[in-house]
Amino acid sequence: MTLTRVSQSKHFGGTLTKYSHASTSTQSTMHFNIFLPKEAAGNTKVPVLYCLGGLTSTEDNFPQKSGFGARASQYGLALVFPDNSPRNVSSRTYIQGDLGFSEAGASSDIGYGAGFYLNATKAPWDKNWKMYDYIAKELPEVIASNFPVDTARTSILGHSMGGHGALSIFLKNQSAYKSISAFAPILHPIESSWGQYALPRYLGEDKKTWEEYDTIKLLSRYAAEKNLRDDVKFFIDQGTGDQFLNNPDRLHTTVLVDLVKDLGLEKQFEIRFQDGYDHGFFFISTFMNDHIDHHAKSLGLTLNA
Amino acid sequence: MTLTRVSQSKHFGGTLTKYSHASTSTQSTMHFNIFLPKEAAGNTKVPVLYCLGGLTSTEDNFPQKSGFGARASQYGLALVFPDNSPRNVSSRTYIQGDLGFSEAGASSDIGYGAGFYLNATKAPWDKNWKMYDYIAKELPEVIASNFPVDTARTSILGHSMGGHGALSIFLKNQSAYKSISAFAPILHPIESSWGQYALPRYLGEDKKTWEEYDTIKLLSRYAAEKNLRDDVKFFIDQGTGDQFLNNPDRLHTTVLVDLVKDLGLEKQFEIRFQDGYDHGFFFISTFMNDHIDHHAKSLGLTLNA
Repeated sequence: MTLTRVSQSKHFGGTLTKYSHASTSTQSTMHFNIFLPKEAAGNTKVPVLYCLGGLTSTEDNFPQKSGFGARASQYGLALVFPDNSPRNVSSRTYIQGDLGFSEAGASSDIGYGAGFYLNATKAPWDKNWKMYDYIAKELPEVIASNFPVDTARTSILGHSMGGHGALSIFLKNQSAYKSISAFAPILHPIESSWGQYALPRYLGEDKKTWEEYDTIKLLSRYAAEKNLRDDVKFFIDQGTGDQFLNNPDRLHTTVLVDLVKDLGLEKQFEIRFQDGYDHGFFFISTFMNDHIDHHAKSLGLTLNA
Repeated sequence: MTLTRVSQSKHFGGTLTKYSHASTSTQSTMHFNIFLPKEAAGNTKVPVLYCLGGLTSTEDNFPQKSGFGARASQYGLALVFPDNSPRNVSSRTYIQGDLGFSEAGASSDIGYGAGFYLNATKAPWDKNWKMYDYIAKELPEVIASNFPVDTARTSILGHSMGGHGALSIFLKNQSAYKSISAFAPILHPIESSWGQYALPRYLGEDKKTWEEYDTIKLLSRYAAEKNLRDDVKFFIDQGTGDQFLNNPDRLHTTVLVDLVKDLGLEKQFEIRFQDGYDHGFFFISTFMNDHIDHHAKSLGLTLNA
């Protein structure tokens, strides 16, 4: 497993470094950024928080725009910022929009920048679009093999499509993470125009396969099966000025609120509606410290003096 | 003076809004972002800090990447983020690189994204490239006419080419600003490869005209003429890992350090060399709070509880 360093910047006493590597999951060259706090300099193992980006984002959006640095350095927390899809694979048919824009009503919701954190099973996507395996399995091994991180203290968050990714990956791998949070997550992709466009193309027409990547469906199932950890709090921020909250609803936050009530899980969910905030990074950066605080608590971290 | 709202996001309880307007200085449509803290909502006048971007940046880089929001909202401080050059003017000859790249050794150091905060006097640049007038005169009038800002409490900072802009505009308009700071400023453009490329093209071959936009020359002159305010501290951060500090030196930080010593102005300058930091926004965001603190002190602001 060879990592190639692409760039590095000092940031709040630590380092933010971009690497590329050959991924076995996606059969492509993947990029990620990793922030290592100064505490990691002496090879001391530090906890790690994975941050999954939304549609159209790359490994750069979260580190550049979320304002994570001050708080992460105060806690001595590492963060990993993966890309959200394969890039630069061989066939032109994969390029964002090449398939999409040729169809009526299509948008840039498939291909590059739109991995949906799933394992595609339908051609032409099934060769490279294996983002579930990449995020849930391969990347944590790459990180553990190359950096001083304490893999027993791993957490995950995400934004929008990345919120869907963080929640669904957490639910399917509950013992792997200490905590979970999301900004404006896509909670019910099988009922969202985004999912209804991408899921049949990635997975085929059998809707049972779509439910494997749907937070509402996964949560319902695991709760019914008593396969839901009761020692984790789901922490979610949602702006009320988010353009995707209505007309049509692409996020389904209120469906989650109702489900949590139906399942009697109110104590395990903190869903905050933030007045007037939109779907973008000026919303995320406003509340990023709260999310880092949430994860730090579960990771056993305290603020440095 | 009509402003057109392009976009708006809530951010740390305030609003970040992008506007476009027809500029009389540049004879073009200019864009800027303005952050208004929640204190400005009731039309209460708040102090304002102008933030000037470096080469290739637009009105978006500073607000997206500097992490200004938390601290600015704690102080109740407004910030204005201007573009750094005219855009989309009629002639193709203006487009960044169209002139530059046709000449040996040229780079993207002129035209779009490279206004150098001067008033060009040489064709074809002399029609639109009037960024000095725009930043020092026109934009403050636009801001004062349209927003609840206390114009008697105005400060300025900048990065790289924007650091040059902030320092030279401050020196030539010392009564207009309460405080000044810069990140990795270009201090001596007449001796820098950037300036030596852009200045003759914008201003012609008479080097006396270049000195009007050179912090080292302006500082020397005003100090000799006793036309330098003694109640202002120049606050500058410079990373030692900055790729432009050596081979060749394009910033001339040490020239300023020596000049300050020669002029006996040590008490008025705080020049901090930050170990290992580079020229980019991961450097800026690490120290942005210190700069906001610096300005807030001169603007009479205290942190909210």
